[in-house]
Amino acid sequence: MAEQIWKWAEPGYLENKTTQLMQQELSNAGFSIQTGVAGIPTAFTATYGSGSPVIGILAEMDALPGLSQKPLPTRDPAVEGGYGHGCGHNLFGTGSIAAAIAVKEWMQSKGIKGTIKLYGTPAEEGAGGGKTYLVREGAFNGVDVILHWHPGDRNSASPSSSLAYKVATFSFRGQAAHAAAAPEKGRSALDGVEAMNFMVNLMREHVSQETRIHYVIKKGGLTSNIVPDYAEVEYTIRHPNVNGLNDIWTRLLKTADAAAMGTGTTVSHEVLTGLYNVLPNETLAKLMQSNLEKVGGIQYTAEELSFAEKIRTSVASTSLPPVAQAAAIEPYALNGLTSASTDVGDVSWVVPTAGLSTATWVPGIPAHSWQAVACDGMSIGYKGMMVAAKTIALTAVDIFLQPGVIPAAAAELAKARGGDFIYQSLAGDRKPPLDYRK
Amino acid sequence: MAEQIWKWAEPGYLENKTTQLMQQELSNAGFSIQTGVAGIPTAFTATYGSGSPVIGILAEMDALPGLSQKPLPTRDPAVEGGYGHGCGHNLFGTGSIAAAIAVKEWMQSKGIKGTIKLYGTPAEEGAGGGKTYLVREGAFNGVDVILHWHPGDRNSASPSSSLAYKVATFSFRGQAAHAAAAPEKGRSALDGVEAMNFMVNLMREHVSQETRIHYVIKKGGLTSNIVPDYAEVEYTIRHPNVNGLNDIWTRLLKTADAAAMGTGTTVSHEVLTGLYNVLPNETLAKLMQSNLEKVGGIQYTAEELSFAEKIRTSVASTSLPPVAQAAAIEPYALNGLTSASTDVGDVSWVVPTAGLSTATWVPGIPAHSWQAVACDGMSIGYKGMMVAAKTIALTAVDIFLQPGVIPAAAAELAKARGGDFIYQSLAGDRKPPLDYRK
Amino acid sequence: MAEQIWKWAEPGYLENKTTQLMQQELSNAGFSIQTGVAGIPTAFTATYGSGSPVIGILAEMDALPGLSQKPLPTRDPAVEGGYGHGCGHNLFGTGSIAAAIAVKEWMQSKGIKGTIKLYGTPAEEGAGGGKTYLVREGAFNGVDVILHWHPGDRNSASPSSSLAYKVATFSFRGQAAHAAAAPEKGRSALDGVEAMNFMVNLMREHVSQETRIHYVIKKGGLTSNIVPDYAEVEYTIRHPNVNGLNDIWTRLLKTADAAAMGTGTTVSHEVLTGLYNVLPNETLAKLMQSNLEKVGGIQYTAEELSFAEKIRTSVASTSLPPVAQAAAIEPYALNGLTSASTDVGDVSWVVPTAGLSTATWVPGIPAHSWQAVACDGMSIGYKGMMVAAKTIALTAVDIFLQPGVIPAAAAELAKARGGDFIYQSLAGDRKPPLDYRK
Amino acid sequence: MAEQIWKWAEPGYLENKTTQLMQQELSNAGFSIQTGVAGIPTAFTATYGSGSPVIGILAEMDALPGLSQKPLPTRDPAVEGGYGHGCGHNLFGTGSIAAAIAVKEWMQSKGIKGTIKLYGTPAEEGAGGGKTYLVREGAFNGVDVILHWHPGDRNSASPSSSLAYKVATFSFRGQAAHAAAAPEKGRSALDGVEAMNFMVNLMREHVSQETRIHYVIKKGGLTSNIVPDYAEVEYTIRHPNVNGLNDIWTRLLKTADAAAMGTGTTVSHEVLTGLYNVLPNETLAKLMQSNLEKVGGIQYTAEELSFAEKIRTSVASTSLPPVAQAAAIEPYALNGLTSASTDVGDVSWVVPTAGLSTATWVPGIPAHSWQAVACDGMSIGYKGMMVAAKTIALTAVDIFLQPGVIPAAAAELAKARGGDFIYQSLAGDRKPPLDYRK
Repeated sequence: MAEQIWKWAEPGYLENKTTQLMQQELSNAGFSIQTGVAGIPTAFTATYGSGSPVIGILAEMDALPGLSQKPLPTRDPAVEGGYGHGCGHNLFGTGSIAAAIAVKEWMQSKGIKGTIKLYGTPAEEGAGGGKTYLVREGAFNGVDVILHWHPGDRNSASPSSSLAYKVATFSFRGQAAHAAAAPEKGRSALDGVEAMNFMVNLMREHVSQETRIHYVIKKGGLTSNIVPDYAEVEYTIRHPNVNGLNDIWTRLLKTADAAAMGTGTTVSHEVLTGLYNVLPNETLAKLMQSNLEKVGGIQYTAEELSFAEKIRTSVASTSLPPVAQAAAIEPYALNGLTSASTDVGDVSWVVPTAGLSTATWVPGIPAHSWQAVACDGMSIGYKGMMVAAKTIALTAVDIFLQPGVIPAAAAELAKARGGDFIYQSLAGDRKPPLDYRK
Repeated sequence: MAEQIWKWAEPGYLENKTTQLMQQELSNAGFSIQTGVAGIPTAFTATYGSGSPVIGILAEMDALPGLSQKPLPTRDPAVEGGYGHGCGHNLFGTGSIAAAIAVKEWMQSKGIKGTIKLYGTPAEEGAGGGKTYLVREGAFNGVDVILHWHPGDRNSASPSSSLAYKVATFSFRGQAAHAAAAPEKGRSALDGVEAMNFMVNLMREHVSQETRIHYVIKKGGLTSNIVPDYAEVEYTIRHPNVNGLNDIWTRLLKTADAAAMGTGTTVSHEVLTGLYNVLPNETLAKLMQSNLEKVGGIQYTAEELSFAEKIRTSVASTSLPPVAQAAAIEPYALNGLTSASTDVGDVSWVVPTAGLSTATWVPGIPAHSWQAVACDGMSIGYKGMMVAAKTIALTAVDIFLQPGVIPAAAAELAKARGGDFIYQSLAGDRKPPLDYRK
Repeated sequence: MAEQIWKWAEPGYLENKTTQLMQQELSNAGFSIQTGVAGIPTAFTATYGSGSPVIGILAEMDALPGLSQKPLPTRDPAVEGGYGHGCGHNLFGTGSIAAAIAVKEWMQSKGIKGTIKLYGTPAEEGAGGGKTYLVREGAFNGVDVILHWHPGDRNSASPSSSLAYKVATFSFRGQAAHAAAAPEKGRSALDGVEAMNFMVNLMREHVSQETRIHYVIKKGGLTSNIVPDYAEVEYTIRHPNVNGLNDIWTRLLKTADAAAMGTGTTVSHEVLTGLYNVLPNETLAKLMQSNLEKVGGIQYTAEELSFAEKIRTSVASTSLPPVAQAAAIEPYALNGLTSASTDVGDVSWVVPTAGLSTATWVPGIPAHSWQAVACDGMSIGYKGMMVAAKTIALTAVDIFLQPGVIPAAAAELAKARGGDFIYQSLAGDRKPPLDYRK
Repeated sequence: MAEQIWKWAEPGYLENKTTQLMQQELSNAGFSIQTGVAGIPTAFTATYGSGSPVIGILAEMDALPGLSQKPLPTRDPAVEGGYGHGCGHNLFGTGSIAAAIAVKEWMQSKGIKGTIKLYGTPAEEGAGGGKTYLVREGAFNGVDVILHWHPGDRNSASPSSSLAYKVATFSFRGQAAHAAAAPEKGRSALDGVEAMNFMVNLMREHVSQETRIHYVIKKGGLTSNIVPDYAEVEYTIRHPNVNGLNDIWTRLLKTADAAAMGTGTTVSHEVLTGLYNVLPNETLAKLMQSNLEKVGGIQYTAEELSFAEKIRTSVASTSLPPVAQAAAIEPYALNGLTSASTDVGDVSWVVPTAGLSTATWVPGIPAHSWQAVACDGMSIGYKGMMVAAKTIALTAVDIFLQPGVIPAAAAELAKARGGDFIYQSLAGDRKPPLDYRK
């Protein structure tokens, strides 16, 4: 199945064949399917059992543009300019399904009470933010814990956070005029953009150092002999926690309004996507770590080792980690923070959540590379996927068997998010951008 | 012919049918045709007679994008989004040809010695700069005077200048990086653009007030989560004289280099086009004025008056000139300066040049408007064209008959451009941008 | 008297001995003195006669810092770093008094009815704006015409305008913080200043080309290891007419407010001074011109010529006007505009006003130079002063004798300033800055 | 002695009475004094014994401007606007001398071989950088270890780093011109400053997040009607390590040169001071920690407790540490980093160095506050000082007694600074700014 999905390499919200195949497999295995979750055609849930506890497992699906690649250690696109599974979501989805089915079979064989619920979650990449909309529409209500994993170049289950983030477009409108004959009658929309950028660049000195703010000018005028009446800048802001992000957002809005006021233009904005930071749950993470250690890392065959060594030569880095990292398990560590952002963040603020990563990629291979696509389509990726599937299944089993885990995880979450927390999507009431990859 | 060309409305350097029709007409009238002048397929000359004096007449051809319009006083495109003759070059070309043929017939009937040479000049609009390349390639060598005209909303032959100008693209290259994970490894090409713009905006205080500098950002990065490694800004600079323009250009290049140095990026530039200011020639202008006064302005029929009043209601202005302006001749005045730029400028620095404008457009109608297109396609435009054709023909006749005019005009030009003047195209050795409208 | 005042060289609002001497002279001549006009200690009026018409004459007094100089053609300060009459106000005041007394004697001898009223006007230079406060407080109410003159390097009575202008300080306040340990807690007041400047520099493209905007940063923070909580920028704006100036001012205030909003700071402003443009009055100017032509220019003695030629060698210019310019009268011309600003502007909007300049300085000597100071203290200056005194006296006599002049001048003013004009000082309700030179 | 020095509160490089008193005390105790070390009048060394090992102890002296305060828990300056020991250097110096004398007495009584060498180090604060010059001039050659301490609000000997930093002034020179009449002839030096700042603000996105860059504009023009020909900006840059700092410095120089190039100005710079980051030495730090734990924290009397509680009410903070922190010893921790900078940094790159801080200030009292001055002048400060003196003395004794410590500390230093390290002062060849506090 992972191979089939890898070949399809479908973009976010357009994972039509992928979701069909996944649903079929789970249906065949005796799960009950709900489609079109939260109004998203390719989102689904597959449920087995009933009543408490309810253990959710995430299964992702979407591919990335421009990364099409054959399963070879040298650059060779399968489809020129096509999509490819550079983040390994073909493995992610398939591995999670394998875990869910394994747990279901165990429950059935042991007569365990409770529910196992797999979430087919589309469009994690780019401006997709699929899970944000699932959370906003209540798709995770009643779930006790969420387990997930992600492809990587090492095996780790340590609790790790990500950056909360928000992407928005600011559109400035001015007054067109002949730039030579009557510039005094014009008000440049590009002036608005540049003034906003200027004040944001000043602001960089006065934010906490973990903050990230970056922008590109999407529209900067058509032709230089006309004062541009339209200009557009896209901003991404990130912060280790959602409250800090909201503060930066408020200040960003002020720079936009100020830029419009100071340049005689007007401005409006549209939020493209917004993600919470991941709230790690140590209660669950420790359980996951112990199971990962039980399952162990990945042993390469001679052929795989040869592939690994070949593909590593294509990475321009002087400090690659050792190949042996694939066989090892990273020690448990606190306070991890990745500079990336993920829509698992939103989930982690409403349900206690734990994840792991496994070495589906040869050590040293970065995410979102053709090298990752290549690994995701051959035996190294499949082995990493099986490590994840087993670890998730064992962790789900532990949670069924240890009744204290869920209350402890819930208490930890309640404390972490604070007493008066109410989830509000950073995407506001925006509809899922179902056509963002069209 | 004007109607036919108006219907074709061909873009710059693509005036294939237009040039064909013009050449045919002139060939039929006994002119000798040279095509592909200066390596430009649609440029041609049509010559009658031989030896001194040599009187040149310019004939333009190209239309403008997005202005397609039927000959009606309300907005109604002939082809949605299509080209239209918003600058009246259908009249320009046709009227000049009428003048040339009239002069030829007069020469023939009177046995006058000398040469009349019509220039079919393509691509005056936008980044075309057709005549710049004709001048650079020597197409005007040996010509004694140049006569031309331009559609307008009044009848005037006063000597008037234009702004010298130059358009160039500056391309900055930086270093891409993940904007959240490793911004310190990135160097933003957009930073380069913004730093250049910043220094140029500071420079505005320190240039002579007639200078014009305007820019748009053509490429400002693709997506905000990657530090952009490419960005592009287009600049237009203008100045009442070419020396001043060259000074501004030198300073502009320094801001570009400085911006690259200060932001850790690199920059290269490409000149898109460059035009000299028009050097008015009073000797010729006075002659043109006296002939324009002889020919007189345009009398509207009742129907034309109704059209005029209707179309004027579509112009958002509280200070329209009176309709009667079409019938009047503007008094002779010195020191006129239009804020526009034209490739006639280059011609006027190598040959004594005089032009006039006639009321082909209802008074109050601006150039480059659908209203101008409408006028250019009906009787008002044709009447204006005939005023121009007659005035140019009479002026050519005067020049043939008054042997002192050419030496006086030549002396005036020599004085105006200074002793050590050598023509250097502002477009450098760039080839004509034959595909700029494709 | 001119020599005595020249020696004192008193600064603006501190012209104590000068005003005393002037008042004494006029009192001795039979004028009635009013002191402390408009609450300004050194401002006074000296009135002779009563009833209509009322002819006012301006008499200035103040010197300039750093220009102290002996009456010699080489640089030699009388007092190192001291004040000097670099704008010739010692002559201005004395010449006007001579004119007033001459007119009075003529009135007395001829039994003419009416009033001659001399205004001792302090502090024209720098941020003084003395006459602005006199106008605001109604000191010119009931006056029919104002005559004045100014030292220069030529003899001219053409109607000429000046730039309206306004000077203001913008004070930004932020939040101090340790710049290394807690920059995120700081809000830099200097950021506010730089953001304002940035938006103003963008605005330069979108104002009419005669506009002038210039700024300096008076306070930009104390030490770089503390985020500055205070910063101050001083702006001067100028425009050919007061309405245009007010538009620029409104936009400037918006950039300030926007800068504060966009940088998390606050801003307040203080207007330092504001002057109207001069509204020339052609009715009066023509009269003045005819009298200037009657009086004629200045003939140098051999000694004066030698002084003139010597002092001209100290001016670094390749295009000095001929020395003979001092003997000539400039032809009458319209539409003159100096780039300087003067508080005569305010007067000219409430009373029809005409002025002239005379060649008190050797041709080629600029205002506000030590060379001007030298000329103002010797015979060349005194001769120029007498030309002015005679011309003003003759013009006043003409106005007494030609009853049509005042209504015509008044009608011209009414038309020029528009129907709904109400004078509002650009300095608002600010008190005269009596200590600006202390 | 601490009380006497506290009363004198002498500024950096002007610690004349303080250095005299210290030298006297050490001379009386049998130390040999060398004055005027490294050409600095108030710098001295006091040496006892001879030969290896050589243990150095630092003793600081200088006070801070504006912090004069009586030893009371409410704000009450001893001298209005005067200097005060807000960083506790009165205790620092005195405590170190007490330690040195104690070690000397122990050596004498036990017949221990080796050298104890106290450094009287002036001008740590602000742009002083006293020890930078001592290091540059070789004053620490031949020393095996350096021990030091610093007043604080807790007792800690953990190895902690500081930020390397550099302060420099950039002076731009342009061309003055009348801002209204001839702005095109001017080149604004302030433009240069603003362009540099602009590019630096862009650069903030592209430096590692621990970097600090801050600036103030010291001179921004005199009067807004003249294009300023001189402007000056002061920059401070900081980075966790000196190599990173040097990279930032190189880029900063480029922004300055670029700003000059792009604005038609010239620029020069002067380094005011530059400090290395502190290289912590764990070998020594562990020894120091064990001795600090032996000595123990500070017990308040009832009176002291009352003072402490009173003075804490004057601090505007909602999260003061408990008063009991003064009695505790902080646990040993790695990777500490203060955002401040200190000239101990330079010392630590040439000699293995360890320091501690003791609770001379009531917990919650920040450095450089009047509250710190108050504590430094009464019993709480003296008790903290004695904890430091004892800990340093015990650590010196340990080093004498454990021959393995010095080689281990030296090896650690060698590894930390890298093989090809050569000390180069960040202040270049600048002379000590002996008059920076005059």
